[in-house]
Formats: sequence, structure tokens, C-alpha cells
Amino acid sequence: MRTAIITVGKEVLTGKTINTNLATISRKLNEIGIDVNRSIVIDDIEEEYYNILDFCDSDLIIFTGGLGPTIDDITRETVIDYFQVETYLDKDILKDMKNYFDRINMKMEDTNDKQAYFPKDSIILNNNLGTAPGVIFKADNKTIVLFPGPPHEMIPMLEELILYLKNELKIKLYSKGFRMVGIGESSIEKALTGFYNKHPLVNVAPYAGVGELKYVFTSSNKKALMETMNHFYDLFNEYIYGNLEDTLEGVIVKKLAEKNMIISMAESCTGGLIASKIVNVSGSSKVFKESFVTYSNEAKIKHLGVKEETLKTLGAVSEEVAYEMAKGTSKKTSADIVISVTGIAGPTGDTPGKPIGLTYFGLSHMGVTKTYRNIFNGNREMVRIRATSFALNLVRKELFK
Amino acid sequence: MRTAIITVGKEVLTGKTINTNLATISRKLNEIGIDVNRSIVIDDIEEEYYNILDFCDSDLIIFTGGLGPTIDDITRETVIDYFQVETYLDKDILKDMKNYFDRINMKMEDTNDKQAYFPKDSIILNNNLGTAPGVIFKADNKTIVLFPGPPHEMIPMLEELILYLKNELKIKLYSKGFRMVGIGESSIEKALTGFYNKHPLVNVAPYAGVGELKYVFTSSNKKALMETMNHFYDLFNEYIYGNLEDTLEGVIVKKLAEKNMIISMAESCTGGLIASKIVNVSGSSKVFKESFVTYSNEAKIKHLGVKEETLKTLGAVSEEVAYEMAKGTSKKTSADIVISVTGIAGPTGDTPGKPIGLTYFGLSHMGVTKTYRNIFNGNREMVRIRATSFALNLVRKELFK
Repeated sequence: MRTAIITVGKEVLTGKTINTNLATISRKLNEIGIDVNRSIVIDDIEEEYYNILDFCDSDLIIFTGGLGPTIDDITRETVIDYFQVETYLDKDILKDMKNYFDRINMKMEDTNDKQAYFPKDSIILNNNLGTAPGVIFKADNKTIVLFPGPPHEMIPMLEELILYLKNELKIKLYSKGFRMVGIGESSIEKALTGFYNKHPLVNVAPYAGVGELKYVFTSSNKKALMETMNHFYDLFNEYIYGNLEDTLEGVIVKKLAEKNMIISMAESCTGGLIASKIVNVSGSSKVFKESFVTYSNEAKIKHLGVKEETLKTLGAVSEEVAYEMAKGTSKKTSADIVISVTGIAGPTGDTPGKPIGLTYFGLSHMGVTKTYRNIFNGNREMVRIRATSFALNLVRKELFK
Repeated sequence: MRTAIITVGKEVLTGKTINTNLATISRKLNEIGIDVNRSIVIDDIEEEYYNILDFCDSDLIIFTGGLGPTIDDITRETVIDYFQVETYLDKDILKDMKNYFDRINMKMEDTNDKQAYFPKDSIILNNNLGTAPGVIFKADNKTIVLFPGPPHEMIPMLEELILYLKNELKIKLYSKGFRMVGIGESSIEKALTGFYNKHPLVNVAPYAGVGELKYVFTSSNKKALMETMNHFYDLFNEYIYGNLEDTLEGVIVKKLAEKNMIISMAESCTGGLIASKIVNVSGSSKVFKESFVTYSNEAKIKHLGVKEETLKTLGAVSEEVAYEMAKGTSKKTSADIVISVTGIAGPTGDTPGKPIGLTYFGLSHMGVTKTYRNIFNGNREMVRIRATSFALNLVRKELFK
């Protein structure tokens, strides 16, 4: 099924808006085995629609943008004109639109009426978050899809399109995935030699972020999907922290709450990032009460009882200081589990034997304090984000032991 | 000048990579008055290059991607074939490439040689961060540009292209801008009625982020540019914190260092985000030593000396608690300026009279503690980011008074 995605809008062409719709739609189509062959961004000029539609020999053509109520929004009428399909006025949609304008206390202009005209035999995709409904219709043996541009309006309609296509193409597809931390995509791919050949029925797709990773598995064969995922899990379970909808901090907060445990932290180079991640989980107040950002030596001594001697002889970025920071935080708080971080985020501050990215961690739990060491790549911000993911993963592994 | 940007690559079509190159290139071209008319993403199949080049009647065609050393990378040879331009082997480039492979301890394959063939009379854009050089050449009265795909390799070449186009088109353009905080784009646009008509020679473009904003001014008339910017500055100077290359936290750290001042903070709902922003500035250790994340009532009492009575009668999210948090942090640290934050980030936790987003701030400086109140929109994460920008802006305004 040759597929084209056509994005309409000056904002994307001028670079004011980054075209995330392309990636969102492509990934979803990819999961049901449809490859996008071309993606085109055009200006909202009638002639351009005709040029592009003349050019596209695709079976599935998806437009996003230009469906709104203003006179600049010409996608629906232009595409309908191009394919010369018959239309009708959908009175329910018209009523819904009037209600919407009432709700937001605005007068509905006559120009808005045009949004309620649809090709005969089309499938209408309701828009609960805006005024412009989407639509799927057939013309010239092609499937034409019109989506609004704003991602939060488009995404629910995309789900409907996927269901439609699965049904239309008699695709029964299952899709699941893992979220992972503590390992890079290249290391996984190296370890997967032979894996792909063993599982030809399943599409396996990695998506990399900074300090994190997800793997999505898709197949029409449920049994093959489960076998592939089980095999993958056996290989990498120590790095897998949850399903696609999970977050690392969310998994930790949930587990802490189950175990009735309190977490605290002492942060130097991460400077509050770890605490901030935990606080971003709604309901974290049950498991998090307080933490320290101790960036200077004096603060480490004063608040956490790190020994001046240790700082002097071994330096702030050392295993011993990470150990004492964690110990001190345990003493100063009622936390059941404590993580501490001290490292060199760069771009300056490295010394012989202590490169940029070098970071030590302390983990206190049940009276025992362990230390960990790692070197992170990237600029200052990336080192700090990677150290944060690493620290959260240490906590996770401890909690799930 | 009709302009097309053609992005080559499966990663973009499948949604694995988001096409940020389009926005980066468009904005830069826009600043020198060149509008992009079309942007197309294609698969790296020879036929597709021919289809697209047949279709494009543009004067300027910019390719990104497919310049690498592997056999999949066919952009250079295919585009050169299409236009049937003569080529030559650039021995300097070939030597540079060999040196590059030596440096990274890899053997240069024979296939890499193709990277050193260029159209006659082309301009070569060196690549210091990868193997594939870029190129600008003329064919069929068009200007053809080939860029590598990775943004960090592409961006320095884009700067060279802009210089080339300015020179070629005899464009003398000046571009500057302001970074702003504490005001929304819609409020600014409302206040700018009449402003645009007064300054017809200057292109004014807003770019919105969460909690922040920038305005870019571009003109070929230096005097008009300065007048426009001065006018804009007169209207909004209280919200302007710097030039385009500045960050809010960077401006604050610099000012603190100049004044020999130390900052600290007590964070509840922001949970370490403010500290983390400050720590992200290289060199912040001169002005930041320590801070507290006090998320629970007990932590506010224990570490900051907030009165139990205040928490009981007025609640944790109250002006008085913000005041006592700031006061307490001043006492517990040697900081010269302290900011405190307590608020309701949502999605739960609101009570009658205390809606989600309600946030109080305390600011202690020179023995005086002032309080501020605001309500922020958005989900939990956005409320927290906006509260962080607001807090940093309070500090900035205090420091620049």
C-alpha cells in the first residue's frame, strides 16, 4: 500500500512548528505493516494541492492541517474539488459545531458551515478537542484521509484510522513493548544477532531517547509476538522496567507506595533533577518528603555530615563521598531508601584520572550502603540526564530485587 | 526564489527520527527573506530522486541525508547523475577523510572514495564532525545543495550556505532578537496592534516555548532594525531578559557572579527543578552551594523552621508558608538571595479557593522577604515548568533592579 502524508501549513514550512505529525502517523502505520513512501509539506495554496495530488500515485493519501474554520483553511473543499466527489451537509455535525461554539461562548460564523460538508459514504472522525472533524473517504481507488493539524486533535482520529485500516485490510495486529534503561541501542542490537532471523513474523522496532530506550513488537501472530517478547525479556530483563505506558519514576513511586517506603536523595551534579522526576509523578507525596541539593563541599559537610578529610583527600567526586552523602541523608531523614550522586558534568572540571562524565552513586537501603561508578557521554545537560536515569535505575533494581 | 527541501531517509519516513532539519533550515532561510515552498521526505531509492527532481521546479533545492559512506547512501551520485554535471576527485578531501578514519582507528573502505568526487565549480562544505562533506553547485539554472542528515553535522554547513546565498543574492540582512519571560505571545500580539504597520521594513517573528518566548527581528535596513527593536524594548522591557543566545538561568548565574552573591532555594511543587536549572549553567558552583526540596509538611518544619501552626491553619500552599520557607532557607544557608516555591501542580490536590496551578513564591534578599502569587495553566509537568520560569524571573528582576 503506497502511502503519502501531506502536511499543509506555513508554520511547518517556515520552521515555526516542527512536523511531529509525520513521525506520529508513520510509526502507527508502521506498526500495522504500512510503510510511508513519501511525506510532503506544502503551502496552503490551491494550486499546490493540485500539483501534489497530480504527482502522488499513492493508494493511501493522508492530509494533516488546513481543516479549520478560517478562510485560509481550504484542505477539505480543495481535495473534494480535485476528486470531484459528491457531498452532503451533515446536520448532526453542524449541530455539534454550534454547541461547541456556544460552550466556548463564541458566535459561529457562516464560514464555519463549510466544515459540515462531507463526501458521500465518508467516515467522519469526531473532534472533541476542536471544531474540525476529520474524514476518511474513497476516490479514484485511493483512500483519502483528512486530519486536522494540531497533534492533540489529530491523535485520537489516527487511532480510528488504524482501526479502519486494520479492518479494511483484514489486518489483525498486536502491538506491545518494553521500556528499558541502563543499556544502549547498539549494545542490544549487537546481542540480537540471530534474534531477528528466529522471529520472522514479528516486527521489532527500537526507539532511543537520552538515557532511556523502548522496543516495540508488532505482529499479526499473537503466539509469535509472545514468544518473541519472552525471548527478548530473557535476554534483557535486567534492563526492562515496564511496558510502553510506564515511566521509570512512575514504576518506582508505585513500588515504594506498595512497600510503604519513603525515598530521599542527596544530589550534587544532578542538582535536583532526580527529586524533580519523582515529584513529577502524581501522588508522589506518599513516598517522598524531602531531599538535599548539596553542590558545594561545605553543603555536603553541613547538611549530610560528609567528612572534611574525605573531601580533601579524595575529592568531591569520589566513591567515598557518594557513600557518605547517602549515609548522611539516611541519618538526616526518615527515608527507607536513599540515593546520592556526585559527578563531573563538564564541560570543565576534569582532573587527571577523573574525566568529564565520571559519576559516583551511593545507595542506602536497610542499613546497607553500596556505591556505583559510571562515566556518561554527552554535553553537560546529557551527562546530568543520563546520571539521573542511572540513579533511578539503581533504585528500581534495589526495589525489585 | 522558489525553494524545496528534500529529506532523504527511512528513519524519517518511518517516524524513528523527527525531521528537525526542515525547521532549522526553513527558519534560517526565512531570516534572509527566502520562503520554503515545499518540503519532501523520500525513501533512498534511485527512482524516487528522479521522480522528485522531475517534479521540483524550484530555484533552490536542498537535500539532507544520504551522503554517508555506506552503499545505501546514494544522494551525491544520484543527484549528480540526474543533472549530468562533470565531476572531479578532490584529493585534499580524500586525504582529510583518510586522516579522519586514522584518528578514529578505523580502516577506510574503498567505497568511501566516492565521497571525494564533486561537481566541477562546486563549493565544498567541510565536515569536521563526520565523514561526508556537503556541497553547493549550479545546474540547469538551479542552485543545488547537498547536506548530511545528522543535525550537528548539517548546522555548520547551513551557516555557510546562508553566507553564500546572502552574497549571491546581494542580500545584506541583519537579525537579532530578545528572549522573554513572564508574558504570553497572545498578550504581546494584542499590545502590538499598530506596531507592525509602523515598522514595515522589519520581519518580526515570535517563537513560543513553555514558560518562555523569543522574538526575532530581521531586516536589510540596520537603522530600521534598531528602531523597531528599541520600540519593542520600550513596550516590553520588563519581560526581556536577554539576547537570543542567552538563557534565563545563564543571565542569573552571570549576574550573581558579578555581584559576588550566593543563591539558594526551597522547593516544594517544583521539586528540585529550579536548582537543576541553575546547576545546568557551567560555572554555577561559584554562586550556588545548596538547596532544599521540602515536599512534606514535616520537611518544611524540620529543615526550614516553618511553623506547624502556619501549616495547620493556612495550609502548605499559602503566602505565609512561602514566606517562612524563604526566611528559613536564608537562616539555614549563607545565601544572599533565596527563592521558595509552594503550589498545587495537579492533577489532584485542589481545594475550595485553591485551584490547581495556584503557586506562592517567597523571595528573600538583603533581609527583606517578599511574596508573590500566580496561577499556572497546563498539566502537572507544565505547571511545574511554568512555576520554575516564574521563580527564576522573580530572581532576575530582583537582581537587575
